[in-house]
Amino acid sequence: MKKNKEWVVDVIEEVAYFGKGKRGITRLAFTEPDLKGQEYIMNLMVEAGLTVRKDQMGNLIGRLEGQDKTLPAVLTGSHLDTVPEGGKFDGVVGVVGGLAAIHYLQDMGPLRHAVELIVFVAEESSRFGFATMGSKVMTGSGDITAWSKVKDQNGITFAEALSEQNLDIKQIRLAKRNSEDIKAFVELHIEQGSVLEKKGNVIGVVQTIAAPTRLKITVEGMAAHSGSTPMEERHDALVSASMIVLAINEIALDHSSQGTVATVGDLKVHPGSINVIPGMVEMLVDLRGIKQESIIECLQEIKDAISTITEEQDTIVAMEMMSAEKPVDMSPEISKLIEQSCVDVGTTYQLIHSRAGHDAVNMSKITPTGMIFIPSKNGISHNPDEYTEYDDIMVGIDVLAETLYKLAK
Amino acid sequence: MKKNKEWVVDVIEEVAYFGKGKRGITRLAFTEPDLKGQEYIMNLMVEAGLTVRKDQMGNLIGRLEGQDKTLPAVLTGSHLDTVPEGGKFDGVVGVVGGLAAIHYLQDMGPLRHAVELIVFVAEESSRFGFATMGSKVMTGSGDITAWSKVKDQNGITFAEALSEQNLDIKQIRLAKRNSEDIKAFVELHIEQGSVLEKKGNVIGVVQTIAAPTRLKITVEGMAAHSGSTPMEERHDALVSASMIVLAINEIALDHSSQGTVATVGDLKVHPGSINVIPGMVEMLVDLRGIKQESIIECLQEIKDAISTITEEQDTIVAMEMMSAEKPVDMSPEISKLIEQSCVDVGTTYQLIHSRAGHDAVNMSKITPTGMIFIPSKNGISHNPDEYTEYDDIMVGIDVLAETLYKLAK
Repeated sequence: MKKNKEWVVDVIEEVAYFGKGKRGITRLAFTEPDLKGQEYIMNLMVEAGLTVRKDQMGNLIGRLEGQDKTLPAVLTGSHLDTVPEGGKFDGVVGVVGGLAAIHYLQDMGPLRHAVELIVFVAEESSRFGFATMGSKVMTGSGDITAWSKVKDQNGITFAEALSEQNLDIKQIRLAKRNSEDIKAFVELHIEQGSVLEKKGNVIGVVQTIAAPTRLKITVEGMAAHSGSTPMEERHDALVSASMIVLAINEIALDHSSQGTVATVGDLKVHPGSINVIPGMVEMLVDLRGIKQESIIECLQEIKDAISTITEEQDTIVAMEMMSAEKPVDMSPEISKLIEQSCVDVGTTYQLIHSRAGHDAVNMSKITPTGMIFIPSKNGISHNPDEYTEYDDIMVGIDVLAETLYKLAK
Repeated sequence: MKKNKEWVVDVIEEVAYFGKGKRGITRLAFTEPDLKGQEYIMNLMVEAGLTVRKDQMGNLIGRLEGQDKTLPAVLTGSHLDTVPEGGKFDGVVGVVGGLAAIHYLQDMGPLRHAVELIVFVAEESSRFGFATMGSKVMTGSGDITAWSKVKDQNGITFAEALSEQNLDIKQIRLAKRNSEDIKAFVELHIEQGSVLEKKGNVIGVVQTIAAPTRLKITVEGMAAHSGSTPMEERHDALVSASMIVLAINEIALDHSSQGTVATVGDLKVHPGSINVIPGMVEMLVDLRGIKQESIIECLQEIKDAISTITEEQDTIVAMEMMSAEKPVDMSPEISKLIEQSCVDVGTTYQLIHSRAGHDAVNMSKITPTGMIFIPSKNGISHNPDEYTEYDDIMVGIDVLAETLYKLAK
């Protein structure tokens, strides 16, 4: 039966309970709160009459069978894992909204195509440094050799995290799905920016998704006594690192008209003691944009800035490219269907670009893919203050259900 | 019997074994390696015929009795604890050298005064954020109320660390000693700077010891999605923090002719994830000098710089003064005795200031105190590459023994 706003509010609030801390929600991939959240959604899927399974990677899949079993399935879904101290809407809206949309579809009468709701694992890179791992495996694009080497902040390897959930890193490749079994993928998500809010539109029809280029920068200085080492004789790794942080910020500000952004999200000081001049600093940099040329220019400018700083400060800097993905276009056909659904539902909408990465990036490699954005209050996301009006979520669900119906009928 | 260079090399190398890691030596206060190091020295004290005890704080005291029990004791000593990834000479030279000097004294014939070798606990602030805790307690100047609240990086309180060694935080005040029982304190230590090396002198007779002013600076920005938040709308705590690091460095460089130095030794980013704009940064600052006016000027300039940065970046900055000590003069009488001992031994020497803090700062409050410096190769300390020539250590021991003899005979 069609689910109302109260149901959606209740379910989103219930999910927010898993991993709730002093500040925001911390539901890192493959941790206990993440698993508990999945179990909660799995029960709701079963209640809705879906056939439920987990694939070899731990992606949760609920399937509403269609009348014609020879036809490919229409897919929707998003993720439940969060960044540390995150909000309650990022990802969750696409999972809970997807489930609500399937309830709508059940009211609309029998469909020829099957419809699947997918809860992708490890969309956020916060735990293992790799983003959208679940959808990468599902589309055959994960660098599993690299993943097999990573550890989280507690020293737990990715393979161990899988193993705790009875999953085997050697088997995850088997989660890859075939293009011919899938007709399309449509994801509902909060914008995580303020374009819709500023323009006063409820729906954004995503045209392009920016993909992150990620760097690890290591600065080697010389650890020394903080009292007895004269200022002129220091090779303070944190001073060089601070110059690099500011240079990256300046470069990104220069390129902001191109939609490019850059962030030093983490910085670790070694040995990190009040009485020792920092001998080594490690930084993680996230660089993204809609325009590939701008990203390439930024990268070159960052390298040039580092060379200058290295020389002036007599410190050694190493830059490692952890990942470099290109911006990805959504399917024009799916976009048109979403636009038509907005007209049918009678809501305001606009075309939009996504600066955040999504599982839709990977899904677009094996099937026609589209994304539906709804507004984020003040553009805030990855923060406990993340908020989207429930009325907007309900419109998003209507547009998603209408689009899935057009695809699956 | 007089100990030779081979004995000194052996003992210093043995001590270096406790806490040896991949990079340097980590023998933090009250940890297992620190305790093991103390036990090793305690056995050597007993072998040397000293009466050994530990006080209520865990300071290890070895006493060579004098002929006249009514006379106050002459004290020497230093510390065994290190910074994380430190070297093998800082502190250790004063402990091992002190023991070697007592062996010399035993050869020189009976002394009227008792002589004590003290191994002070927790000289480094690395574990609990407070420096020279052992000598503070011994001289009645520790802020035990503040200490009772601190935890180390693993969440272990200072009281718990004491308790693991069967010490009781409620009893540590009893370790305070009376001025009338002590005639003088003389500490042998590596310079941890490059003044002696550059001037080509083996011994530095310390005139003034700089004391650290320590600040905790907290920058509050706004955590947000690293992809979808435009550069112009950010309140990145790490960008503000980087500006503060560079401002502090510039201010200290301007004051370096006054002998003032400033260091941001640690900086922690929250939440510290590659896909989140830093929402909060905590920094620890160490500011030191020989001239109190210069330190006060620096502090004011740091405050002014922070105000400007805060306003420009629209972030909130809080500055907490963790400690603020004044530079301390050594006893002119003890200095004269050390100078005379250098002449007697026939070594090159000069007057010098100490930019690093030492237990001698506290001891000077209850007894006439002096310090003997020996060269540090390239001025390096608090680093695995810390090195002092063993020939220089032997000269330092000769000068220490001669000075102790003059005081105790």
